[in-house]
Amino acid sequence: MSNHDVASWDQYVEVRSETEALAAPIRSEDAQIQSMPDASPTKWHLGHTTWFFETFLLDGFSGHRIVREEYRVLFNSYYNAVGAQHPRLRRGLITRPSLDEVVDYRHAVDASVRRFLDTASTEELERKAGILTVGLHHEQQHQELIMTDILHVYASNPLKPRYAEDEPPPVAAAEPMRWHAYPEGIYWIGHEGEGFAFDNEYPRHRQFVHAFELASRLVTAGEYMEFMSSGGYQRPELWLSDGWAVVQNERWQAPMYWERRSGTWWQMSLYGLRPVDPNAPLCHVSYYEADAFARWSGVRLPTEAEWEVAASSLPIEGNLSQNGSYRPAGPPRSQNGSGPTQMYGDVWEWTQSAYLPYHGYRPAVGALGEYNGKFMCNQMVLRGGSFATSAKHIRPTYRNFFYPASRWQFLGIRLARDAE
Amino acid sequence: MSNHDVASWDQYVEVRSETEALAAPIRSEDAQIQSMPDASPTKWHLGHTTWFFETFLLDGFSGHRIVREEYRVLFNSYYNAVGAQHPRLRRGLITRPSLDEVVDYRHAVDASVRRFLDTASTEELERKAGILTVGLHHEQQHQELIMTDILHVYASNPLKPRYAEDEPPPVAAAEPMRWHAYPEGIYWIGHEGEGFAFDNEYPRHRQFVHAFELASRLVTAGEYMEFMSSGGYQRPELWLSDGWAVVQNERWQAPMYWERRSGTWWQMSLYGLRPVDPNAPLCHVSYYEADAFARWSGVRLPTEAEWEVAASSLPIEGNLSQNGSYRPAGPPRSQNGSGPTQMYGDVWEWTQSAYLPYHGYRPAVGALGEYNGKFMCNQMVLRGGSFATSAKHIRPTYRNFFYPASRWQFLGIRLARDAE
Amino acid sequence: MSNHDVASWDQYVEVRSETEALAAPIRSEDAQIQSMPDASPTKWHLGHTTWFFETFLLDGFSGHRIVREEYRVLFNSYYNAVGAQHPRLRRGLITRPSLDEVVDYRHAVDASVRRFLDTASTEELERKAGILTVGLHHEQQHQELIMTDILHVYASNPLKPRYAEDEPPPVAAAEPMRWHAYPEGIYWIGHEGEGFAFDNEYPRHRQFVHAFELASRLVTAGEYMEFMSSGGYQRPELWLSDGWAVVQNERWQAPMYWERRSGTWWQMSLYGLRPVDPNAPLCHVSYYEADAFARWSGVRLPTEAEWEVAASSLPIEGNLSQNGSYRPAGPPRSQNGSGPTQMYGDVWEWTQSAYLPYHGYRPAVGALGEYNGKFMCNQMVLRGGSFATSAKHIRPTYRNFFYPASRWQFLGIRLARDAE
Amino acid sequence: MSNHDVASWDQYVEVRSETEALAAPIRSEDAQIQSMPDASPTKWHLGHTTWFFETFLLDGFSGHRIVREEYRVLFNSYYNAVGAQHPRLRRGLITRPSLDEVVDYRHAVDASVRRFLDTASTEELERKAGILTVGLHHEQQHQELIMTDILHVYASNPLKPRYAEDEPPPVAAAEPMRWHAYPEGIYWIGHEGEGFAFDNEYPRHRQFVHAFELASRLVTAGEYMEFMSSGGYQRPELWLSDGWAVVQNERWQAPMYWERRSGTWWQMSLYGLRPVDPNAPLCHVSYYEADAFARWSGVRLPTEAEWEVAASSLPIEGNLSQNGSYRPAGPPRSQNGSGPTQMYGDVWEWTQSAYLPYHGYRPAVGALGEYNGKFMCNQMVLRGGSFATSAKHIRPTYRNFFYPASRWQFLGIRLARDAE
Repeated sequence: MSNHDVASWDQYVEVRSETEALAAPIRSEDAQIQSMPDASPTKWHLGHTTWFFETFLLDGFSGHRIVREEYRVLFNSYYNAVGAQHPRLRRGLITRPSLDEVVDYRHAVDASVRRFLDTASTEELERKAGILTVGLHHEQQHQELIMTDILHVYASNPLKPRYAEDEPPPVAAAEPMRWHAYPEGIYWIGHEGEGFAFDNEYPRHRQFVHAFELASRLVTAGEYMEFMSSGGYQRPELWLSDGWAVVQNERWQAPMYWERRSGTWWQMSLYGLRPVDPNAPLCHVSYYEADAFARWSGVRLPTEAEWEVAASSLPIEGNLSQNGSYRPAGPPRSQNGSGPTQMYGDVWEWTQSAYLPYHGYRPAVGALGEYNGKFMCNQMVLRGGSFATSAKHIRPTYRNFFYPASRWQFLGIRLARDAE
Repeated sequence: MSNHDVASWDQYVEVRSETEALAAPIRSEDAQIQSMPDASPTKWHLGHTTWFFETFLLDGFSGHRIVREEYRVLFNSYYNAVGAQHPRLRRGLITRPSLDEVVDYRHAVDASVRRFLDTASTEELERKAGILTVGLHHEQQHQELIMTDILHVYASNPLKPRYAEDEPPPVAAAEPMRWHAYPEGIYWIGHEGEGFAFDNEYPRHRQFVHAFELASRLVTAGEYMEFMSSGGYQRPELWLSDGWAVVQNERWQAPMYWERRSGTWWQMSLYGLRPVDPNAPLCHVSYYEADAFARWSGVRLPTEAEWEVAASSLPIEGNLSQNGSYRPAGPPRSQNGSGPTQMYGDVWEWTQSAYLPYHGYRPAVGALGEYNGKFMCNQMVLRGGSFATSAKHIRPTYRNFFYPASRWQFLGIRLARDAE
Repeated sequence: MSNHDVASWDQYVEVRSETEALAAPIRSEDAQIQSMPDASPTKWHLGHTTWFFETFLLDGFSGHRIVREEYRVLFNSYYNAVGAQHPRLRRGLITRPSLDEVVDYRHAVDASVRRFLDTASTEELERKAGILTVGLHHEQQHQELIMTDILHVYASNPLKPRYAEDEPPPVAAAEPMRWHAYPEGIYWIGHEGEGFAFDNEYPRHRQFVHAFELASRLVTAGEYMEFMSSGGYQRPELWLSDGWAVVQNERWQAPMYWERRSGTWWQMSLYGLRPVDPNAPLCHVSYYEADAFARWSGVRLPTEAEWEVAASSLPIEGNLSQNGSYRPAGPPRSQNGSGPTQMYGDVWEWTQSAYLPYHGYRPAVGALGEYNGKFMCNQMVLRGGSFATSAKHIRPTYRNFFYPASRWQFLGIRLARDAE
Repeated sequence: MSNHDVASWDQYVEVRSETEALAAPIRSEDAQIQSMPDASPTKWHLGHTTWFFETFLLDGFSGHRIVREEYRVLFNSYYNAVGAQHPRLRRGLITRPSLDEVVDYRHAVDASVRRFLDTASTEELERKAGILTVGLHHEQQHQELIMTDILHVYASNPLKPRYAEDEPPPVAAAEPMRWHAYPEGIYWIGHEGEGFAFDNEYPRHRQFVHAFELASRLVTAGEYMEFMSSGGYQRPELWLSDGWAVVQNERWQAPMYWERRSGTWWQMSLYGLRPVDPNAPLCHVSYYEADAFARWSGVRLPTEAEWEVAASSLPIEGNLSQNGSYRPAGPPRSQNGSGPTQMYGDVWEWTQSAYLPYHGYRPAVGALGEYNGKFMCNQMVLRGGSFATSAKHIRPTYRNFFYPASRWQFLGIRLARDAE
């Protein structure tokens, strides 16, 4: 990870407070459990993001006393270079520390960070500036994970609790899908210049991209229901082999969190269980479903390079977390400019690119080298952020990645096709 | 289940209050989780015991309004005749209702029970008297389960929290084991007469029992450590075949909750992690370990009939829950009479009897017929109660039962042998 | 195991030849595979029974050279005292030795046994006499296993091959079930006197048996179909809890090897796939199904003591392997005497007795102590033998045992009930 | 798949005979079993390749009578468009048809193919020409699978049988690794022009390739042993996260088929168990191991485009199946030209490219569209063929693919690095 943008105490406070504000509506019991192996308890997210600063920023700082020795292990996610980790599958067993104690932990570390920033030498600040920035971007990632994971907790409960009460009005009908054309050429892909980026966005490098077209908006739930009605989940020829196996084994019949009640599809969301809005962007599909839908549609998913080519000239705006909405929304009524809409926010967009190192990729030095590089296998790249992503966190070169069967994140579909 | 002993409101209040007093030291997050498939959350126990009264006693009582429709399923353990059940393995996902809401549920049902007892006709009272009594005995069973299950929660946590603070002093050294002899004969086994008993203790019937001898006290942790030192867990010839498979697969090296730290054995208990007391009764062994220890000792475990023959003439006294101790204690210094000691309380005693119906057994009528009868396969009988069993709940004919690999209950060993 | 009956070379040749005759129709490829974890390849049975003599009888005999060192491990089933075992689940991987080589192994050991019997001192013969006899009874057990296991192989194959061609004619309709009454009393149970018996049939000891009645014949397939038609597999109240879980998980809808084709039930058998004969004894049910059927019938299964009481006065005759039939047959047209029919042969009869040691049980000394004793947990006793059991192998005190979910053996139902 | 090269009857006979010659040393029992889920029995390979012609070539040909209706299902691998498939995991249960019957099946289909070629109209021949060619390439793939799968069978057997007897002499010491440089540029990747290629090699398209260097030869077993000695399997920082999980779960300590005996590494091969030859090309490593070894070496694996760039100018020669050697050999003593050696044959070379569709990829029409396209997820590309690959089957654009944890194929490592 590179960084030319030293985060200030004010930025630190802002991000840390946002996290606590997001967690505030979550009760201690909801924050406790691990409702499936992929998800983590809210409490663990709160502790882990704090552990990150304590471990990587305050390490060796005489003004900080380790809050509790056991937390080194309890809240280590996967950093082998730092030491042992509490087993991922057992995060729900961490009833102690309590939620209150974890919040105390947060505040103790916050106070030490403040002391560190106040007292560290310029040289030391310089040396640790990158870690401070990474720590905040790391925390922004976990802000989104808090939302995806608590939705799974709520969805697992027969009482179907909700995170937020005041659901926005239904989404207006989407305009017909149009196609934006891009010419072939050698493009520069990856991050450079000012601003933070993760190590996996480096180095900026050239790729040959064939002429292609990108859909003007996201696929809607209504369009996906047509796929379902036409037997999409019963037709093996539409699916990748591994995807078809999952469909069979898991008995998938619809996106995650959808359930049929007396002839109508409902979807569990942060606003509770509600009828599927056909105009809303489709959410909670796996790569396999995205790929099958694209095949059924006679087109395909974009590559990550194509997506980046299209996004690089667009402003970073859309239904992002700053909107305060806890669900994907429709495309804006009037578009600004002629590019595709909804490129940022609403739902992450599956690409047909496997998550692999860029040519010339070098992982960050030290334990943070484990942040991204070691996951470059078996996962697919997603782009653009969701309604739960901070506008200060996303950018055109940002590479998110999940296993192709994952569905619990806020994941959707944008189509692409070869140019004629 | 038969009943000639109608429980009063005072008895009801007493048992229900005991449950809440037991649960009081348990924090909401500890009460939330299901730390393994066999165990249930404290909160679930509090809800389920209440559901029992709402479902079986208040059913059809116009003075009661169902507290929440979903609880019918959430808190149904295994009564198919009553309807669907929330899956056992997903009890830890019940973050809602919260602990407070479950306590409210308890009190709402308590108030209705009070109304019912105040207003019901004599005939109706008569008809429901058995259910009220069963409900209280059922709740006493769950009182013990709350303790066994919360210990597993605490033991799963690296911070090793404790249920209780003031640990009693070490146990005095046990006297040498002696043998009490009983003559052969046809004995009456099973319950009869006054007082409550579960349906599985009926009917009282005859069994031929060969002359046998029963050990004067429980096996101590120190005696078991000798078995361990002599290679007990490494010698297949000491084990039942299924037991040896478990030893291999689970890599058992010691009783449950034991761990070795710098040359010393420690055991997790309701008083936290503490060194194993060699004088204390052995606790947390499976049937397989009990059987292997007995074989290593050159003797055997008692049958349940033998145990009952020996117990039938002894007073119901011992280290039971009324003692307020949260661990097994040693035998009393001076024995009352010449019989074996520790027959009641301390730890449940594995017998070599499979849990099967008595000759002439008839399950209770209706849904309560599912209480005991359907479990009469694959489990072994235990007798005598533990330190977590109420003195008002145990009796000489009481048949507890667990799978032979179970260890998380308060389970120990008493030896027996054929008479010469 | 006790033995007062020294087996001769002629008896040895007879049993060993019977095994090879049974295996003769089985092709090398059918004899190769392990079609499920519980079953073993025919080839392995041929090798293992030979290993038994090589290991236990010829051990230390200078006239025998170990045929191949690796066979010590490959063909050891579960005798820890003898050494390591090829993993049970990997028996199907033993492509070498080939079937021919295993037959050679048999003959090499046979020749050594002949030499041993010819040259051993009387004292040595005396010492090993028991082992020789046990080895033959052991081989007779495996004769039956060859048949049960090859049926599973054939049933696993879509081409549905058959073991034998000339199927006997349909079974005549069974007479109505009658009940034979037996008075209460202290009975002697277990083997004594002349003739071989396994160690688990000792010691002969007393049991109090209540008055009971035993059905005059086995339950037929047609009677079981009535249970099925009445929703037997859909009604949890008929099932033990563990059994109901298996019914759900395995989606049992009928006995093993039954399948429904265009409205008719067919059953795979050693004569191939054929329509279920409603008059034939029911075969291939688990204990759970036997227990559920008995409950549905308003009666119960017999205990093993009850069965033995009834059998002890009956001649050992019935549809046993000497009949040359490879399926259960109906009861004899005219009964000899007034007792129940079909007590021997046709199908093994589930009892409601757990497989436990008799009072005073002592396992055989040495490695053969592992033969029976270590399995005395989690299994249920069956009595009487099947059409695949040799008349020279079965007796009134014989205790067979299987896990309650097992179905691939030739297992059926006889009912019992309490005397009025 | 495209095809401008109509296969003749002579070619058909040649390929089909090669298959039978390869299978000839394999005994019927070895040919029967499925020793792990990924592998298939030799007999199944023989049947499936025949089914391929019967299903796709002879479909609708009046001169052919379906040999046996059940074979349609038994020998269908994964073609949903053709109909149901015998479950992949149950291929070892197909004891019938016997090996002889499968060979008869082969010959019956061969005769029909002969008739078809003799009697079909030119138009029909034209229409089916592609299928005939694909069928032969398909069979060549299975020729290699027969070898990889039978090795697993032999390795699973404690007697360690061997496929071939006369092992070639040890490999000479490899020359030091050198690096061949290639300039950056837009390269054409994929097949075009004369000769057969699978659909996944189409369309030929442009990719920008950065300047890179490719190692002059394969990694040797000796070099890999250095990685092992330096703690390669114990250092998580060298591994992809998913790879490290496999190393832990599977307890990998060495390549597949390696075992340590008294201080020396041995490897099971088609010549039996023999000491690892440090000069021989490393074989039987997963992508995870290849990637970790490259990271430990300070370099990386090539992309498939890089590999193809380097290979496109080289002759198709090397240790391929025509050599008649059943193991990887060393590089040739004197190189022909200045390019890297061993690009073809010896072992397949892992690339760091995920198996994905080329830009503009269209699967073949009809059922054969399932041949390659539906596997384009979760797998990595390998290039160059192995000693078990036919020289008539391999080419520079050939894309093989396996899951990153696969090891049982003949898989090895060639290194690459960025140009300075």
